[in-house]
Amino acid sequence: MWAALAAVGKDPSTGGYRRGGWTPTEREATHWFTDQCTSRGLTLESDGLGNLVAWWNPITGSPALDRAGSAGRVPSVPGVVTGSHLDSVIDGGAFDGPLGVVSALAAVDRLRAEGFSPSVPIGVGAFVEEEGSRFGMPCLGSRVAAGVLSADKALALQDRAGVTLAEALEVAGADPAGVGPSPLLDRMGAFVELHVEQGRALTSPVGVASSIWPHGRFRFTFRGEANHAGTTLMEDRHDPMLTYAMTALAANKQARLAGARATFGRLSVEPNGTNAVPSQVTAWLDARAASDEVLQSLLGAITRQATERAERDGTTVEMVAESVSPVVDFQPGLRDRLVGVLEGAVGAAPVLPTGAGHDAGVFSAAGIPTAMLFVRNPTGVSHSPAEYAELDDCLVGVEALAAVLRDLAR
Amino acid sequence: MWAALAAVGKDPSTGGYRRGGWTPTEREATHWFTDQCTSRGLTLESDGLGNLVAWWNPITGSPALDRAGSAGRVPSVPGVVTGSHLDSVIDGGAFDGPLGVVSALAAVDRLRAEGFSPSVPIGVGAFVEEEGSRFGMPCLGSRVAAGVLSADKALALQDRAGVTLAEALEVAGADPAGVGPSPLLDRMGAFVELHVEQGRALTSPVGVASSIWPHGRFRFTFRGEANHAGTTLMEDRHDPMLTYAMTALAANKQARLAGARATFGRLSVEPNGTNAVPSQVTAWLDARAASDEVLQSLLGAITRQATERAERDGTTVEMVAESVSPVVDFQPGLRDRLVGVLEGAVGAAPVLPTGAGHDAGVFSAAGIPTAMLFVRNPTGVSHSPAEYAELDDCLVGVEALAAVLRDLAR
Repeated sequence: MWAALAAVGKDPSTGGYRRGGWTPTEREATHWFTDQCTSRGLTLESDGLGNLVAWWNPITGSPALDRAGSAGRVPSVPGVVTGSHLDSVIDGGAFDGPLGVVSALAAVDRLRAEGFSPSVPIGVGAFVEEEGSRFGMPCLGSRVAAGVLSADKALALQDRAGVTLAEALEVAGADPAGVGPSPLLDRMGAFVELHVEQGRALTSPVGVASSIWPHGRFRFTFRGEANHAGTTLMEDRHDPMLTYAMTALAANKQARLAGARATFGRLSVEPNGTNAVPSQVTAWLDARAASDEVLQSLLGAITRQATERAERDGTTVEMVAESVSPVVDFQPGLRDRLVGVLEGAVGAAPVLPTGAGHDAGVFSAAGIPTAMLFVRNPTGVSHSPAEYAELDDCLVGVEALAAVLRDLAR
Repeated sequence: MWAALAAVGKDPSTGGYRRGGWTPTEREATHWFTDQCTSRGLTLESDGLGNLVAWWNPITGSPALDRAGSAGRVPSVPGVVTGSHLDSVIDGGAFDGPLGVVSALAAVDRLRAEGFSPSVPIGVGAFVEEEGSRFGMPCLGSRVAAGVLSADKALALQDRAGVTLAEALEVAGADPAGVGPSPLLDRMGAFVELHVEQGRALTSPVGVASSIWPHGRFRFTFRGEANHAGTTLMEDRHDPMLTYAMTALAANKQARLAGARATFGRLSVEPNGTNAVPSQVTAWLDARAASDEVLQSLLGAITRQATERAERDGTTVEMVAESVSPVVDFQPGLRDRLVGVLEGAVGAAPVLPTGAGHDAGVFSAAGIPTAMLFVRNPTGVSHSPAEYAELDDCLVGVEALAAVLRDLAR
């Protein structure tokens, strides 16, 4: 399975993955997933946005539901869903997302091979546009499914080329009218997402998530005055690039001081000409911290320094929160149950928080009992072609996930 | 003439001009120019790249030359050429370039109306891609014409979409094989370019150029390591955005200290994703100073600070000079002659240097006696939609240019 997915959407020049939502490469990865599910006799169910759950449905005689037009019988009783996502950030790594999907399928294979007979349905899920790399909204699929992002707002989102989600769905052959809160979640009694760890915090092969840090995306617009780069006295300029540069350095410093994270990874410069002082710099800040209070304090400090520098530069700065996710504390009972199961199956599993957002966070906030398993990342590198996990650790991850499913569906 | 040109290539959203070399809008401006020349009975001559000189040819019986396939008789004796360019930076102003072309035509009209009979041919020139906004090479037309940029190097230049100059010429219906040192320059006995001043240095309606500051375009490549913006500890990062930000602030400070100019107006970020620490930031520095020594010292100081910061950030920085133009001192004899002529015609004209590059600088360096007239810029704003000159000052400019042509061609 891993080898088959490895080639899909890999950019030959960077070695990174480019699987933005509803792009041809992401669709190819999704087709690979549906083929895998079909060949295993799993019953695929899709919602209007394209989130997928494939059911291993051992309950004979359960009523057939066909809300989303999927073929086959779908269980009517809540099940245990595991899985992750297949899309990637721009030039992302191979593990972020796909490891959870492949491990879910492998865990089902393992349980079937040993003759395990689940008492509740087990579902394997793949949720769309988790990274938000195309439409700028992370966890787009799970947010719409959970009803925390309305269909209207979602469908109006635009990619960098100005294509709306509604248009992208139509290109992909889907009807935008079907987008909205997902019936898939009605049958999701619990959700367990396995994911590669994305820092260096985990020193055992697998761990269990305690919480997801609050995080947000904030768009800073620095406005100044375009001018000639050769003739305009430095003293006569209103150069928004300087205001931005100081803000980027301030964000880094404040995040270090707060033990938090602040990153300017995306920029747009107008007119972006070598011999012109820019008229405008737009910069996106990704900020995360251990608590909502620390995040707000961090953002306040960065904005304050940006505003002070803007006054010196004769520029202006405007900040808009594009998305803010509060802290997610995973259900302690489920978390402790996983720790106990893993102790017996694969050894001690540390409990640790993460700075990364996940569909699991959205489902947890929506009231679904949710847990996460992490697989060790030896370098801590993620969202990069260099992202990596050892094969042995990945196999322990499958073992651990199978043990958790065996326990939850026994 | 001004009203006719005002609409060509003006972007409705920014109000700025977008006339990159060989784009439809720049071609439209060029067609406007050839129509104006033809309707005046001037004899148009073009070189293989598309530089144009239209001759007012009062010398009856001069042998007809037809090197570039132009119709009509072309003078065989060196003439006095005036003019400028019709292309623009991205979102540039209305005056930079077109003012010199329109004033040249208006000065010819004025001399003809008063019955002036020149003893040598007078040419009105329009030179291509002076701003370098499409192919990244300022004064592209004059550099190729003067032979300081080879046809091979020029034709291989690429725009941001990867289109080569050779391909752009073919699209425009020109044969790349004809590109090279221009026969137009053989008949250019002197060149006078009128241009809007681009700072606030000129307080009289018109002035005369003493020199063009040395200037260069330097591409800085900052390389680090892509990583997850949420999970990677600030201390574990190799973020090239920070190295760039510090370099941009250092460039500003060093330019102020040196009384020079340094601008980062163009950036490219990889992968440019909100939730990824960038792997690479490419930034173009435009740097200019009063002397070659000061420019080198400025560049050394900026590069040194960039390198020091890169060591702190665990990143690397590489600097490539994309183009460097040494100081241009305009011929003192011609300059003083212009000052004398203007004194009698329109009043005292200050002599001042400029930080902006011009085709006049290339022609001067190629050994053609060259001078420049500046028209006052009340705000100093240039390379911006807000670029402006008063109508009265522009009319003094035409008067001054007519007086200079009357003197040089008497």
